[in-house]
Amino acid sequence: MANPTASMLVIGDEILSGRTRDANMHYLAGELTNHGIDLHEVRIVSDDAEAIKSAVLALSSAYDHVFTSGGIGPTHDDITADCIASAFEVHLDVRADARALLAEHYERSGKELNAARLRMARIPDGAVLIDNPVSIAPGFTLKNVHVMAGVPSVFQAMVASVLAGLTGGDPLLSQTLRVLKGEGDIAAPLSALAEKYKDLSIGCYPFQDNGVYGANVVVRGTNGSHIEQALTELAVELQI
Amino acid sequence: MANPTASMLVIGDEILSGRTRDANMHYLAGELTNHGIDLHEVRIVSDDAEAIKSAVLALSSAYDHVFTSGGIGPTHDDITADCIASAFEVHLDVRADARALLAEHYERSGKELNAARLRMARIPDGAVLIDNPVSIAPGFTLKNVHVMAGVPSVFQAMVASVLAGLTGGDPLLSQTLRVLKGEGDIAAPLSALAEKYKDLSIGCYPFQDNGVYGANVVVRGTNGSHIEQALTELAVELQI
Repeated sequence: MANPTASMLVIGDEILSGRTRDANMHYLAGELTNHGIDLHEVRIVSDDAEAIKSAVLALSSAYDHVFTSGGIGPTHDDITADCIASAFEVHLDVRADARALLAEHYERSGKELNAARLRMARIPDGAVLIDNPVSIAPGFTLKNVHVMAGVPSVFQAMVASVLAGLTGGDPLLSQTLRVLKGEGDIAAPLSALAEKYKDLSIGCYPFQDNGVYGANVVVRGTNGSHIEQALTELAVELQI
Repeated sequence: MANPTASMLVIGDEILSGRTRDANMHYLAGELTNHGIDLHEVRIVSDDAEAIKSAVLALSSAYDHVFTSGGIGPTHDDITADCIASAFEVHLDVRADARALLAEHYERSGKELNAARLRMARIPDGAVLIDNPVSIAPGFTLKNVHVMAGVPSVFQAMVASVLAGLTGGDPLLSQTLRVLKGEGDIAAPLSALAEKYKDLSIGCYPFQDNGVYGANVVVRGTNGSHIEQALTELAVELQI
């Protein structure tokens, strides 16, 4: 059976302006690979309602899962929940369960649950809350869209909460062969190998490292012994 | 006059599997900001022809420029040139100008210009070559799509070649105010500020750093004195 498919939507002007280097995509990619869910596409859009809505709808209909990061805090530029609710034409308001989590948290920390913070309790009807052990304000899952925070520590905790409840497939395995030859010299045997092992994905990534040129050949797939076999054949062919 | 708009398409299984953390997007975002070109959207897709073609067409029609990275090397998984040509229904073959560049380079370095390496001279009809001072094999611009290599040093050199020929707008300026208050405590004044300065984009990015909580307020825009003024007002309002 094929693995479930996934996509990610990163929301945030700070990534697109070059101010912040995104860390969540790389983290999620690794976690999904381990969990046997295939990440097919990532989109990064600005804090713009129309851009968010159309990307969410496109990704939600194309893949089994959509993971979003960013835009669920208390400030005016946090519009993700509004956009998701609007995209799916679902009512959005402060919800009792989310409000209760925040009320308890802010009472404990002696801070006021003011209007801005209450924004974080606005959850679309029908959504399931995603646990946030770091800073309490929850994410949510609506249909196949998992809406999470952009702050990396919170994002990572939410990914753990979501993945615990999802059925994955076979983890994607990979092995790398470091070859001290130019890509152009190994392209033909690699192409033949890809032709022979159609269940494996064979990538070739050139490097130059202090004057040493070569390529890392990465063989990926869910069948570990096929990967072994393919790499052994390649090493023999390249006389490594 | 509004700045030109841009999007980026990153092509590569190695990013989506979590093996490699993309560096080109962050680099391009910073360069475009300096050059007065607004990056609105980034998509990352796998080495899949249909995914690449549909993303290129969507981005090419929505934005003034599309910058792609990855998939123009000599191996079987390098299919970007084929996809771009096919998306725009343009003929693709080894082109004399690109072949001449490669022939001279490989003769000088004593390597054979074999069939695999010749793949890198396949350029769509009507495309303009993008100079590659690092490893010679050129990128190309077809219509509003700039096709560049995925290896960061080569990508960066190609971005410089492309940007030298593009007319940008006003560089996007930004200033940051570090506030040692919770996002929820400053959300109302920030919202009022965003309402007042509609030409500025005001973002709020919470941090927690060894038990110190706060937020970086980033004000962006092309009018430096407006940014000054907005931040000064905010500092007074927050009594910083």
